[in-house]
Amino acid sequence: MSKTKRIGVLTGGGDCPGLNAVIRAVTKCAVFSHGLEVVGIEDGFQGLIERRVRTLTTDDVSNILTLGGTILGTNNRCDPKRYPVTIDGRVELQDTSEQVMAYIAELGLDALLVIGGDGTMSVASNFANRGVNCIGVPKTIDNDLEGSDVTFGFATACHVATEALDRIHTTAASHHRAMLVEVMGRNAGWIALHTGVAAGADIILLPEIPFDIDKICQKVVDRSRHGKRFSILCVSEGAKPIDGVQAVDRVDPLSPDPIRLGGISKVVADRIEKRTGLETRTTILGHVQRGGTPVPEDRLLATSFGHAAIAALMAGKKNRMVVMQGGRVTDIDIFKVANRQRQVPLDHPLILAARDIDTSFGD
Amino acid sequence: MSKTKRIGVLTGGGDCPGLNAVIRAVTKCAVFSHGLEVVGIEDGFQGLIERRVRTLTTDDVSNILTLGGTILGTNNRCDPKRYPVTIDGRVELQDTSEQVMAYIAELGLDALLVIGGDGTMSVASNFANRGVNCIGVPKTIDNDLEGSDVTFGFATACHVATEALDRIHTTAASHHRAMLVEVMGRNAGWIALHTGVAAGADIILLPEIPFDIDKICQKVVDRSRHGKRFSILCVSEGAKPIDGVQAVDRVDPLSPDPIRLGGISKVVADRIEKRTGLETRTTILGHVQRGGTPVPEDRLLATSFGHAAIAALMAGKKNRMVVMQGGRVTDIDIFKVANRQRQVPLDHPLILAARDIDTSFGD
Amino acid sequence: MSKTKRIGVLTGGGDCPGLNAVIRAVTKCAVFSHGLEVVGIEDGFQGLIERRVRTLTTDDVSNILTLGGTILGTNNRCDPKRYPVTIDGRVELQDTSEQVMAYIAELGLDALLVIGGDGTMSVASNFANRGVNCIGVPKTIDNDLEGSDVTFGFATACHVATEALDRIHTTAASHHRAMLVEVMGRNAGWIALHTGVAAGADIILLPEIPFDIDKICQKVVDRSRHGKRFSILCVSEGAKPIDGVQAVDRVDPLSPDPIRLGGISKVVADRIEKRTGLETRTTILGHVQRGGTPVPEDRLLATSFGHAAIAALMAGKKNRMVVMQGGRVTDIDIFKVANRQRQVPLDHPLILAARDIDTSFGD
Amino acid sequence: MSKTKRIGVLTGGGDCPGLNAVIRAVTKCAVFSHGLEVVGIEDGFQGLIERRVRTLTTDDVSNILTLGGTILGTNNRCDPKRYPVTIDGRVELQDTSEQVMAYIAELGLDALLVIGGDGTMSVASNFANRGVNCIGVPKTIDNDLEGSDVTFGFATACHVATEALDRIHTTAASHHRAMLVEVMGRNAGWIALHTGVAAGADIILLPEIPFDIDKICQKVVDRSRHGKRFSILCVSEGAKPIDGVQAVDRVDPLSPDPIRLGGISKVVADRIEKRTGLETRTTILGHVQRGGTPVPEDRLLATSFGHAAIAALMAGKKNRMVVMQGGRVTDIDIFKVANRQRQVPLDHPLILAARDIDTSFGD
Repeated sequence: MSKTKRIGVLTGGGDCPGLNAVIRAVTKCAVFSHGLEVVGIEDGFQGLIERRVRTLTTDDVSNILTLGGTILGTNNRCDPKRYPVTIDGRVELQDTSEQVMAYIAELGLDALLVIGGDGTMSVASNFANRGVNCIGVPKTIDNDLEGSDVTFGFATACHVATEALDRIHTTAASHHRAMLVEVMGRNAGWIALHTGVAAGADIILLPEIPFDIDKICQKVVDRSRHGKRFSILCVSEGAKPIDGVQAVDRVDPLSPDPIRLGGISKVVADRIEKRTGLETRTTILGHVQRGGTPVPEDRLLATSFGHAAIAALMAGKKNRMVVMQGGRVTDIDIFKVANRQRQVPLDHPLILAARDIDTSFGD
Repeated sequence: MSKTKRIGVLTGGGDCPGLNAVIRAVTKCAVFSHGLEVVGIEDGFQGLIERRVRTLTTDDVSNILTLGGTILGTNNRCDPKRYPVTIDGRVELQDTSEQVMAYIAELGLDALLVIGGDGTMSVASNFANRGVNCIGVPKTIDNDLEGSDVTFGFATACHVATEALDRIHTTAASHHRAMLVEVMGRNAGWIALHTGVAAGADIILLPEIPFDIDKICQKVVDRSRHGKRFSILCVSEGAKPIDGVQAVDRVDPLSPDPIRLGGISKVVADRIEKRTGLETRTTILGHVQRGGTPVPEDRLLATSFGHAAIAALMAGKKNRMVVMQGGRVTDIDIFKVANRQRQVPLDHPLILAARDIDTSFGD
Repeated sequence: MSKTKRIGVLTGGGDCPGLNAVIRAVTKCAVFSHGLEVVGIEDGFQGLIERRVRTLTTDDVSNILTLGGTILGTNNRCDPKRYPVTIDGRVELQDTSEQVMAYIAELGLDALLVIGGDGTMSVASNFANRGVNCIGVPKTIDNDLEGSDVTFGFATACHVATEALDRIHTTAASHHRAMLVEVMGRNAGWIALHTGVAAGADIILLPEIPFDIDKICQKVVDRSRHGKRFSILCVSEGAKPIDGVQAVDRVDPLSPDPIRLGGISKVVADRIEKRTGLETRTTILGHVQRGGTPVPEDRLLATSFGHAAIAALMAGKKNRMVVMQGGRVTDIDIFKVANRQRQVPLDHPLILAARDIDTSFGD
Repeated sequence: MSKTKRIGVLTGGGDCPGLNAVIRAVTKCAVFSHGLEVVGIEDGFQGLIERRVRTLTTDDVSNILTLGGTILGTNNRCDPKRYPVTIDGRVELQDTSEQVMAYIAELGLDALLVIGGDGTMSVASNFANRGVNCIGVPKTIDNDLEGSDVTFGFATACHVATEALDRIHTTAASHHRAMLVEVMGRNAGWIALHTGVAAGADIILLPEIPFDIDKICQKVVDRSRHGKRFSILCVSEGAKPIDGVQAVDRVDPLSPDPIRLGGISKVVADRIEKRTGLETRTTILGHVQRGGTPVPEDRLLATSFGHAAIAALMAGKKNRMVVMQGGRVTDIDIFKVANRQRQVPLDHPLILAARDIDTSFGD
């Protein structure tokens, strides 16, 4: 059995509802059930480089279950192998791995509990290779982690996006309009699929099913002919047209540099408006999908993952990541966390159901 | 394959968020994908006795996805075998089964799609035995159906109850108090367990774990000694004390008849107040857990179930009930729908996790 | 002008969404705009007796705007004139006023900012009489303060109650039922009136309009005859029948002492069920109306009140309470804060509007 | 007194939560209290040109109180004086006023109840001039109507925007970032001011206070220096820089025509990122602010306005628009409804309060 006495906890990557629920479960399980000491590391791996840590007591994690964000702070891009240092006015990327290893030893950490996405797990595996026992807890609102059926944050993102679509629905119904809502998900359509079906969107655009703009316009016109005044489109930010035209970075005329100004949904809206003459309106939800109080499902999943991570640790396991498979929490080799995304299979039951209730995927 | 042309749909039993989502999915799949006619039957089996039906078009089910309740109406207790008829001023229970069979034949229904709980399924099996193809869709907010891992309505009930507990939490923290919230679930603790863990309740009382009032008071006092000003209790309406003292129907002094006045949570609150001297406050959520817009999870599950029911029918299946097992929608023999409830197993991962984060179950 | 350098802040009375928003506004205005020191007093006047205070910095009040409850704690009943002390095993009520005065002097407080209801203001006036400059900020979810058109917490209470009624509405519509929801408000019907009209209740019972149970039953039966399957009743906890029958403390048969088991809504429900034969269901919302994140209106009102309190103080005003009158924040003499409640006038525009859209008040 | 027997009702202009609540109150008051007939006109004035009307019964308006949108449909731009007709393949604008007058006479309408914004009122006054008694009910989420202290839809828009800012807040706090949320309001800053103060934004940009990008960046940097990791900006869509640089229609490189691609918040975000090096994220909420279930305040205001409109009509008043002034519903001359917007005065109490709690307006 484990002789673990003292563990470090960090959160890395983008924001995700449920991070604090994991930190709370980890800390409470560690302290109450196993008498461990927990060291909170600030801003992901950056805190290990910059020596910013603090002890986490069970009081510190009281009342954070419902809190969005992470009390530890996070960092999107920090990799100790490539830490930017300014030398003689020039920024150089240094490998600080040894420095981090020394600090971990100094802190006396028997294990590192790493809560993050595939990027964070990849950084963790660097230290796992150097002998640090890394226990991973996967985190992504996009639900695209290979190895887990579901990830926390996803339910909240779908909840927020569905509420927005519900609101849009009523304003669409009062006008002759096509309303587009662009949701997150990177190159996986999980949020768009779940949100689109839950909100009864007429057209759902997923990265996994390249869309034909003609088919979309046809659907909109057909609905209009059948007396439906409006069409609701739920568009994944990663949706792609069959002919390869893509959302592009557009030029701000006030600025010499190109800046990113919006997504694929604006291009689709523009096309619909031009071809059908129908008014369109677009909402790009953005970061509201990543923030705020997690829904109960995500709190339960985050609590289960946090509990399972400590249980794995205390069972003497090494370098594992907890996952949900077939309705049960289990764990997999942290080195094998694939960097490729888990996309929506084309025969997913929700896609089949949606097609049968006359939802179009633009194909 | 099925030669089904015309189907009846009814909803029976208590209210449950997602009923309309099933009616919508069933009707859209039946009409759009299979060209069936759909007959909506009003108020459960009562509509078959009283000949109250109407054709359901896809327009009729537009915009009902987010609507609580059921557009068809429901009926808690109607069994055609025991239909109350007033004869010479006396109420007699008549068996109207043959009359219903004749009406089904007259309507030309090739199948009956029955959305309801175990009571409704039991009534349906009467007609299945007489040759009507009955396809069941299970419905209960209590999540206690033997044969399905989860039922629609459950997520919404937990969501509503969790929101209430979240609100209670802040008012508890400002005072020295024990706050009790009583949730539904009949003799199964699913809602209390999920809500209690999701909301971070300090004590969770389930029907499956008889509670010791001394242990509850001890926990409350211990928390107080450790500087925690308050305790939150999430109490299942079916919670039972180890010594068999129960919530009882109390007597309204204004009335000769006993009426039911409240639940076990009031008895527990009274005991805590007397023994610890701490103020207590009790909220019994009641029917708010059964109504209103279903959360996205329930809309997805209800849509999947509705779709699967039509798919089973069109595949030529007979007398089946759709269920969720191991993350997949499948179907089981409608005659075998057990009348016993699926209770929470004592080694459920959420119970283990809750104990490890220092939640008490009063045992 | 004021030479105020250091002020104390306390919250007294029952919980109310927006308390933290006042504390935040008071502290930020005091520190950022006037360079004052702010001393937070714990648990209302009890903190002044028991010498429990702490400095409040602007960091301490960061991120509390949306938080329910009060970070300072509160106390429902503490009056320094009657502070219970145990002497020789007996509890005696002592007058600790001088002790409190000495502590205030010791702390060097130039003013006391008192956030509370009429009870708290009455206690404050004791110290105002002894020379402490007391600036009051009124607080009650019941909206029944004589002198202010509106109080913070009220909008949130109405919001929570309206959401509950919205949920109840759909479950009522699926059955033949009368659904009753009992809301707070003490002897004023503000919450019931606003909630009832906002949620489209069929019958609204207010303390200001004694109800006739026959009229209520008649309304329910009339609706049934006109094809309305259900009736929704929004019942103020202070509602009274014309014939003086009241909700009473009922006897718990397991206990020698009477305990309070529920409200007037259960008595009304019982009467409706007996006389009309219609099923009824009752929900008593309780403390969920007092807790949780305040709605935007309450955050704005609380922020305005906090700002106005500091402005009054810095303008050299003494012993005033800030109020809202005719859409403007102003202040009144704290000694004149009436102990009587502001009830709903019988010709209130919402009552007239409700009657014209066929809402019954049971009279 | 009025001899009104039959009235027409229409909704014009953009969507606004509460429209259905007005239609419901108008219809119920008209039918239940005054025995009038109510004719619902579809899609604003377009329904009068195209002869699309239907009788509204009290059953038709049951259950629409909580429904977003308008059951009558609306039309953003239709003016009978300039109705587009295709003649010989060319679109010509015709004056259909006489045709509409004839149809109103044919329908036997004694009055026209017009629910809309300043554009719709301006169209109505054309018919008022021709002898039709037009009673107006003002509608705008922007709260910018000269003559009314508040309009329905505004509270809901602020509620939706505040929820979004609340969610953004937590994700901002976990990173070093500036987060911008752009809200509606046209050339008035009401939504941005109320939302910004309610959500505790650090910087609020209003059309009424031209912003200095240097001041904004300075504030962001100052906060960073004081250990605040993030800044939240609430940006009105009409916000303007002091030096006249504006949000512009940007060019889609895939398209020969310019299309509108986003708002001023993206330009501000770009400037902050460039000057401070801090990451920024922008959310443009768009039409979610116009849709969905109205909050209780808007239901109450819409019900009061509908009731007051019928009361004015039955009192024999002609060509009036109902408004809220000093906490009371009254009415003003519909011809005098100014076309200019009511902007936020620079000494508005919320601006003063916000400045005192250290909120910047970028000036």
